[in-house]
Amino acid sequence: MSQTHDVAEYLSSFVNSLYRHGADHAVICPGSRSTPLALALQRSRQIRSYVLIDERSAAFFAVGIAKQCGRPVILLSTSGTAAANFLPAVVESFWGHVPLIVLTADRPPERRDSGASQTIDQVALYGTHTKWFQDMPIADGSQDLNRFAWVTAARAMHYAMKDPKGPVHLNFPFREPLLIDPLPKVSMFQEVKRIAPATAEIGREDRDEIAHSLSLFRHGLILAGPGFMGHALDQILELSQKLTWPVFADPLSNIRGRDDRIIGTYDAFLRVSGQNLPPVECVIRLGAPMTSKALNLYIKESWIYSIDGENSYREPQLQSGRIIEGSLPDVMSGLSKALNPLPINSDPEWYSFWQQRHKTMLRLFHKRLNEPDEASEPYLYYHLGNLLRNSGPAEVFVSNSMPVRDLDTFTQNPGPLRFWGNRGANGIDGIVSTAMGIASITPYAQTILIIGDLAFYHDMNGLFAAVKYQLNILIIVINNDGGGIFSFLPQGQLEDHEFEVLFGTPHGLSFEHAAFLYQAAYRLAKTPDELRQSMGELLTISGLRILEWQVPTRKENVSRHTNVWS
Amino acid sequence: MSQTHDVAEYLSSFVNSLYRHGADHAVICPGSRSTPLALALQRSRQIRSYVLIDERSAAFFAVGIAKQCGRPVILLSTSGTAAANFLPAVVESFWGHVPLIVLTADRPPERRDSGASQTIDQVALYGTHTKWFQDMPIADGSQDLNRFAWVTAARAMHYAMKDPKGPVHLNFPFREPLLIDPLPKVSMFQEVKRIAPATAEIGREDRDEIAHSLSLFRHGLILAGPGFMGHALDQILELSQKLTWPVFADPLSNIRGRDDRIIGTYDAFLRVSGQNLPPVECVIRLGAPMTSKALNLYIKESWIYSIDGENSYREPQLQSGRIIEGSLPDVMSGLSKALNPLPINSDPEWYSFWQQRHKTMLRLFHKRLNEPDEASEPYLYYHLGNLLRNSGPAEVFVSNSMPVRDLDTFTQNPGPLRFWGNRGANGIDGIVSTAMGIASITPYAQTILIIGDLAFYHDMNGLFAAVKYQLNILIIVINNDGGGIFSFLPQGQLEDHEFEVLFGTPHGLSFEHAAFLYQAAYRLAKTPDELRQSMGELLTISGLRILEWQVPTRKENVSRHTNVWS
Repeated sequence: MSQTHDVAEYLSSFVNSLYRHGADHAVICPGSRSTPLALALQRSRQIRSYVLIDERSAAFFAVGIAKQCGRPVILLSTSGTAAANFLPAVVESFWGHVPLIVLTADRPPERRDSGASQTIDQVALYGTHTKWFQDMPIADGSQDLNRFAWVTAARAMHYAMKDPKGPVHLNFPFREPLLIDPLPKVSMFQEVKRIAPATAEIGREDRDEIAHSLSLFRHGLILAGPGFMGHALDQILELSQKLTWPVFADPLSNIRGRDDRIIGTYDAFLRVSGQNLPPVECVIRLGAPMTSKALNLYIKESWIYSIDGENSYREPQLQSGRIIEGSLPDVMSGLSKALNPLPINSDPEWYSFWQQRHKTMLRLFHKRLNEPDEASEPYLYYHLGNLLRNSGPAEVFVSNSMPVRDLDTFTQNPGPLRFWGNRGANGIDGIVSTAMGIASITPYAQTILIIGDLAFYHDMNGLFAAVKYQLNILIIVINNDGGGIFSFLPQGQLEDHEFEVLFGTPHGLSFEHAAFLYQAAYRLAKTPDELRQSMGELLTISGLRILEWQVPTRKENVSRHTNVWS
Repeated sequence: MSQTHDVAEYLSSFVNSLYRHGADHAVICPGSRSTPLALALQRSRQIRSYVLIDERSAAFFAVGIAKQCGRPVILLSTSGTAAANFLPAVVESFWGHVPLIVLTADRPPERRDSGASQTIDQVALYGTHTKWFQDMPIADGSQDLNRFAWVTAARAMHYAMKDPKGPVHLNFPFREPLLIDPLPKVSMFQEVKRIAPATAEIGREDRDEIAHSLSLFRHGLILAGPGFMGHALDQILELSQKLTWPVFADPLSNIRGRDDRIIGTYDAFLRVSGQNLPPVECVIRLGAPMTSKALNLYIKESWIYSIDGENSYREPQLQSGRIIEGSLPDVMSGLSKALNPLPINSDPEWYSFWQQRHKTMLRLFHKRLNEPDEASEPYLYYHLGNLLRNSGPAEVFVSNSMPVRDLDTFTQNPGPLRFWGNRGANGIDGIVSTAMGIASITPYAQTILIIGDLAFYHDMNGLFAAVKYQLNILIIVINNDGGGIFSFLPQGQLEDHEFEVLFGTPHGLSFEHAAFLYQAAYRLAKTPDELRQSMGELLTISGLRILEWQVPTRKENVSRHTNVWS
């Protein structure tokens, strides 16, 4: 058989196995060396392919799709620096537990380190930031290699999906010719299944010991971290009731506003009066660390039980004495059960103390953030649910840096919104593209991205996907001409000649032209009235829409945020 | 002493040492964790700092400066995916022998792999693509650590500059507080010098043996690869004369047109009639491999002597039996000397055979490419020298993929132009930014970038540097709405439904809006007349200028290129 047939058969086995084991989306970056894999993916009618030019944006787009569908997404680049452009998204997906199958085409081994064109060292290119790496062999027509391709694809899918989920990397060297034959019908190999242990609960003895310890604390909290906590809501509330400990929910937990007993105003409250509160003795933290710095500071001396449904180690405060693996709902209902006969030692006023604070803070927000002249960010985040009320359920992706923190502080009754963020490495890169990936397969009518001007600039290339695939997304760019967050940090104390040069970094860009470049509907808003009106208009049309919201200067922004507190 | 003082002293020692050992440019990407290093660089009045937001573009900007000044450029990012964005440029600088001092700020070690924000694994983040890595200690006020910082900076500079030049990476963890004291006057440590062996020649016995072998071949060639071969021009011509072997010069060798004896039309000639030529028995190749595929095919069976002035291994054809280290001029003049008494066996008609072919090809170009209706790329490259004649010496940066190949084929009498490219990994990423770096410190009045539409789109963020630092650069975007090169490759044989989706990848972007976004002068040209006129106009103004040249469709382009050959 010919080489072009051998490769086609080998890749047919590989791609079929990816599909059979659960992959049905691929993001392909154009290139020459990757031709065999690009053709194999494109010719596999079962896999839906997106083709995007900038590998950095394309990789974050794949991250977005994978977050949305919860299954590994295939990502392909050609050899050379093209593959290097994947690193930021690979890093984010590694720390953010997003399953990816990263495929890089390579020059054949005899070209390595020889000065050949587009030949770099792609063996383990992403270092410790993948869960598994294989340097694939070159097809030679042997059935053993075809079987190896099948099994390797199955293993790659398994490793990407096993908690904590993440990226795996397979490097495929190819020799010329790069055009392959039509995909032959390969005699399918057997589906590979891994059978996991049946129980997601913890052992009875451990459970009882933990329950006993929990029952002894007077002041405790349950913290629901970023991630989708909706499936564990009943168990969270049950445990909260058993212990009479309040639940503080991160905005990205997606359970704020789902029940009156869930508290979301803690960040605002702790910023104002964190110092004078009774200390928290114990915390049960679910999933990833909380976004709120004020909260993390407040619980600095607490004993932490961390229940990480993704079976990872996410405990930057190094306070955790118990890291509990297993599925969140199972572990929590087990604990509730074990608490049942125990006398609970919690301070009887602790729960209502927080409920009252929460209600007070909600009233204050209501009063303070309904003033008609309020043009700063708190206004947007507080009214987000209202502004989107008529759109039905919507995806809301919030960028890192200021947006996720403002969301944390000010968004309390989001209604039927689903919140997303890139909280693996918390970068401001790739945000536009990740949101595009979310939008590409959302079941909802609207996807909203809230993003600062620097992050928007960073991934402007990500807008291209919206044009090419006619995605439906409204981007709210909060433009304060530079790095807003630094004004809130100690760096804000620097003299202007250092601050503006190194941190403020004003760019002077007006994003109207970016909108034109990518054929987007565009509105500029400077007041809350204009914001409301523009959003209303943009929500009635579809496609790519950019709302540039010019907010007060960074210094004024700090004082307006501070005003809200006072 | 306070911690903020300790860090200031430590970094003062480090930054002073970088300067004392030859670094005087820094590219800083804004961030919080990197604050101590950003302030130390900014407060060192001797180092000129650029502050750019997108780390990927910023890193390529640093590559451009380093290429231009020939000394290591400092590059700084904050922790997290920000640092990961450097990888493409680090890879390019590693394979392209560009000296860089890459500094990444990191979270302190006690935060590693703990789910902390913007905390990834930065230890050896760039894998095998740096020459040296150090995970730096945290300052503690000890004089030993200050001395270590001084010596480490000196060593980093040394390793970056030692042939083959390249990037080194130092990772700096910092604890809060991140604001440091004003830089104290550190008691300077002693300058660190490495003394290299005095001779750059090879041993006499080796030299005589090589000269003897060379003298025996009938048909040989001297190939001058990409790089600046100007300093070795006399020695190249002397050796050529001794052996009566013609010199074929790559366009990026920058010696084309410098002497009548240097041949630059070989690519065009070999494409037309490569099959029917006498075989070449031996080749002396100087520096990096040649750009021309036709040439590399033609010499596929030749014995290769590779003289690599950068002391690297760049021999993808695996034909070289002798890799000769040392400085190019020294090694060549040594060989010429050794050849002096030897009888030369070369075919007496070989040299004039190529001179005649060269002249014929120049005449053909002259005739074919002066036709007024010729709107395809060959026209631009052939007339480049003429079009820029009135601007004096100029930098010309050519992108990878089609531009560097068209330059190779069609540019023969460039006049006082200096050509640059990113030929380390030959990527199409970071091209705009690298050219910006070249423009930022050029002694010439003009910098021209010739780039295809995909590469331009890929690094559009690179345009920001021109606005911020008022750079003087004219960008000629050759827009054929997609990947032009693929039409010339076997992929061009695919049916449209596969070709356009995976390779042609039309984007439909008009770059006028990109020009508006970055406040650039803009012209659109569709005919050679419009091209000439637009260039004339844009060359009379300064700042960022974009000339979008809409060339024929990709298919038509192939037939026009083919026409030139027939």
